[in-house]
Amino acid sequence: MSQPKQQTHSFSALLAGFASELTFAAVPAAVIDRAQDLFVDWVGSALAGKGGRPVEIIANFCRSMGPADGPCEILIERRGTSALFAAMVNGAASHYVEQDDVHSGSVLHPGAVVFPAALAISQEIGSSGHDFLTACVAGYEVGIRVGEYLGRSHYKVFHTTGTAGTIAAAAATGRLLKLSPDQMLDAFGSAGTQAAGLWEFLRDAADSKPLHVAKAAGSGLTSAYLAKSGFTGAKRILEGPQGMAKGMSTDANPDKLVDGLGSRWALAETSFKIHASCRHTHPAADALLKAMRENDLSAGDIAEVTALVHQGAIDVLSAVVSPANVHQAKFSMGTTLGLIAVYGQAGLSEFEHGFRNQEVAEFQQCVRMALDAEVDQAYPVRWIGKVRLRTRDGRIIEVRVDAPRGDPVNALSRSEIEDKFRRLAAFSQATDTSETNTLLSRLWQVDRARQVSLLIPRNPSRRRSPNGPKPQA
Amino acid sequence: MSQPKQQTHSFSALLAGFASELTFAAVPAAVIDRAQDLFVDWVGSALAGKGGRPVEIIANFCRSMGPADGPCEILIERRGTSALFAAMVNGAASHYVEQDDVHSGSVLHPGAVVFPAALAISQEIGSSGHDFLTACVAGYEVGIRVGEYLGRSHYKVFHTTGTAGTIAAAAATGRLLKLSPDQMLDAFGSAGTQAAGLWEFLRDAADSKPLHVAKAAGSGLTSAYLAKSGFTGAKRILEGPQGMAKGMSTDANPDKLVDGLGSRWALAETSFKIHASCRHTHPAADALLKAMRENDLSAGDIAEVTALVHQGAIDVLSAVVSPANVHQAKFSMGTTLGLIAVYGQAGLSEFEHGFRNQEVAEFQQCVRMALDAEVDQAYPVRWIGKVRLRTRDGRIIEVRVDAPRGDPVNALSRSEIEDKFRRLAAFSQATDTSETNTLLSRLWQVDRARQVSLLIPRNPSRRRSPNGPKPQA
Repeated sequence: MSQPKQQTHSFSALLAGFASELTFAAVPAAVIDRAQDLFVDWVGSALAGKGGRPVEIIANFCRSMGPADGPCEILIERRGTSALFAAMVNGAASHYVEQDDVHSGSVLHPGAVVFPAALAISQEIGSSGHDFLTACVAGYEVGIRVGEYLGRSHYKVFHTTGTAGTIAAAAATGRLLKLSPDQMLDAFGSAGTQAAGLWEFLRDAADSKPLHVAKAAGSGLTSAYLAKSGFTGAKRILEGPQGMAKGMSTDANPDKLVDGLGSRWALAETSFKIHASCRHTHPAADALLKAMRENDLSAGDIAEVTALVHQGAIDVLSAVVSPANVHQAKFSMGTTLGLIAVYGQAGLSEFEHGFRNQEVAEFQQCVRMALDAEVDQAYPVRWIGKVRLRTRDGRIIEVRVDAPRGDPVNALSRSEIEDKFRRLAAFSQATDTSETNTLLSRLWQVDRARQVSLLIPRNPSRRRSPNGPKPQA
Repeated sequence: MSQPKQQTHSFSALLAGFASELTFAAVPAAVIDRAQDLFVDWVGSALAGKGGRPVEIIANFCRSMGPADGPCEILIERRGTSALFAAMVNGAASHYVEQDDVHSGSVLHPGAVVFPAALAISQEIGSSGHDFLTACVAGYEVGIRVGEYLGRSHYKVFHTTGTAGTIAAAAATGRLLKLSPDQMLDAFGSAGTQAAGLWEFLRDAADSKPLHVAKAAGSGLTSAYLAKSGFTGAKRILEGPQGMAKGMSTDANPDKLVDGLGSRWALAETSFKIHASCRHTHPAADALLKAMRENDLSAGDIAEVTALVHQGAIDVLSAVVSPANVHQAKFSMGTTLGLIAVYGQAGLSEFEHGFRNQEVAEFQQCVRMALDAEVDQAYPVRWIGKVRLRTRDGRIIEVRVDAPRGDPVNALSRSEIEDKFRRLAAFSQATDTSETNTLLSRLWQVDRARQVSLLIPRNPSRRRSPNGPKPQA
């Protein structure tokens, strides 16, 4: 039954109204700063995806279907295109090497869906830096709440970044297009009815993950554009009797949709990733690092490792037994802990060159996961790290970390964000040192931009082939 | 766990292999003929969408994001574009006025998702008419089985045409791109992980339906292109523990996926729509027509109508109480039966001009739906029509039809298909009489085409503005 008057009070409508009406002045300065940090980190993640085989396939498809040029920058190529394809390619690129940000409570990768859509629109319509950052905050606030709303049951089957992420991208794009509250609600309706992404791909080490993000960013952007032109959507796509929660969740909690709107800035709860692996491995990885340092252990001293984890880790990582490639290895608790043990870190290079190392493989064999009541109880708001080791000389050592590195309580400084950025750019050779310096300088000043413009310097003498250097695995 | 060898025997793999390896010679001539009939009918449906407000919004978006020109024809405009956007716009156009084909058992609109994707690719790569029709058969066979597999529980919340339709489009496109069985399985994996579409939009008379089809056709086509380039997908996206059935159904039956592959030609079970309304209204509409003819009744003689229906009708149509616009009226049992009673038919013009007619509105008030055990038991394989009338002079009349008009047992002749086509083209003024004649002639000969080429004559002196005539409601 159509009841338009009553639905202006629905949770979907409240969330849409918040996104539509968010002003730069209403966002605390510290949150704006954090948004800028996350933006810098996201650009680094996007650069790191250059040359990745699945990323390049998506990029080639977009090139063949799109215009020859356009105002929206493809960060891994030296050309522009229309907003839809820039969002798709940049999104895909940023969600390939497993270095993009993650929000623990919603199990969402907000940056990978919000920034590509927002950047594309901003470059197309010439948004100010203030509008750009405000819109990105709106995207994070919406996406995180939708992810928390859809809950743990959703995440068992669906890739929340692909589903909730579609609405996050619609919110950010919609704010930049200055949608009214009603139009923003229409954008949510269109986005939610395109929301998709299933975890089944991971069992087969298939390429779908960057595709999920490309589609979420692209579909969210599409939804906002359509709404601007008067295209209507369901008014209760999230909570309605034939909506997202009904179709894709069994524990959706509507209070989460509007939790602390305007006072709780969920963006500031977002974590930076250090280890180049699925975030579910990070708490145990950090606990293992601590255990080895505190007890002066090397990999060879350890006979057995039990990672004491939350259910989400089991849901996602159990599918991976023997990683078939680098990407799937990033979803292996055993491989991640093996790299930590053998190399002291599990970064891009360690995964690239070390995931099949003999010693790493042997270490992987002695790793198992077990559900831990305390860790699971705290999940997903807190991701406690715990490991139990049995050493070869018979000691049992149990170590705990309250929060993995990169969580807000254990945050990265701007200098550490820059170091990570440079490693990512160098890894894929997307930009050389000089370009990286210029780019970083522009990124740190985006808040002051009168109009967000091209980020990467286009020096014709430095033009690279669109296909970049050697492809990664 | 990754088990590539065993999964070559999965139902998903068998279905993908069937689609990949289908040859023209293997398809009975009568099925090829029916495919051609459905193609003609689909083109008519696409033309009828010209000028529809939501269709034009999607078309404008695609124009702004796509290349200035391309080899793939947009049937409602006089220009070409890339395959992705041609598929999206033609798909959307064909699923707006509720005249496109429907397969009863799967509750799927196969034509609206298969033909736009297949036509676009065929025009891009210059496929033969034989390949085009074979690929469309593959699309129908796959899509219908996936729809039947996902079942009634899926359809309660999800729009099967948007979800299963994505895989149908991938199958047709993949066959034209000559994907190997493994590549076709990858295409299914990519398609299934993008499958989306929720019924919630209908409660608010929102515009989403053509968007669902645009996305299904576009995402299916995308999946096939990606697979051709080596992009991998889940090998059991349909039946796996984190796949479509797990996420979006509670009564999925795997046997349906491979039911009679190669012997049962589900395409030939597809129905043509006569009344310009949701197919769930058609059985009752035909029963009412029969009742009124047999008993020489006019609208004013009838005091009350009970449409004795299956559950699917209640699931979809109950949401509409007081139709807000023409499109929503097509999902109103009461309005549809009112038009039948007052005008003797419920076609495009009757809906456009009569849905708010006083007499129709009064008739609508006396219509109710009730679940009928016999009708529901036969559903969805058979859609039995039953109505019970109470006349003003106190008679109770119950009438039944075994199958609504347009079902294979009650099929349209080629002459009737042409008549319908002309009505659709004239309704939107997409083509004038001369163009319609040329177009029909080309369509009826597509099986003989060496290369599928442009369908609508491009006479520069007849060039219309891309925005067509006055927009519909």
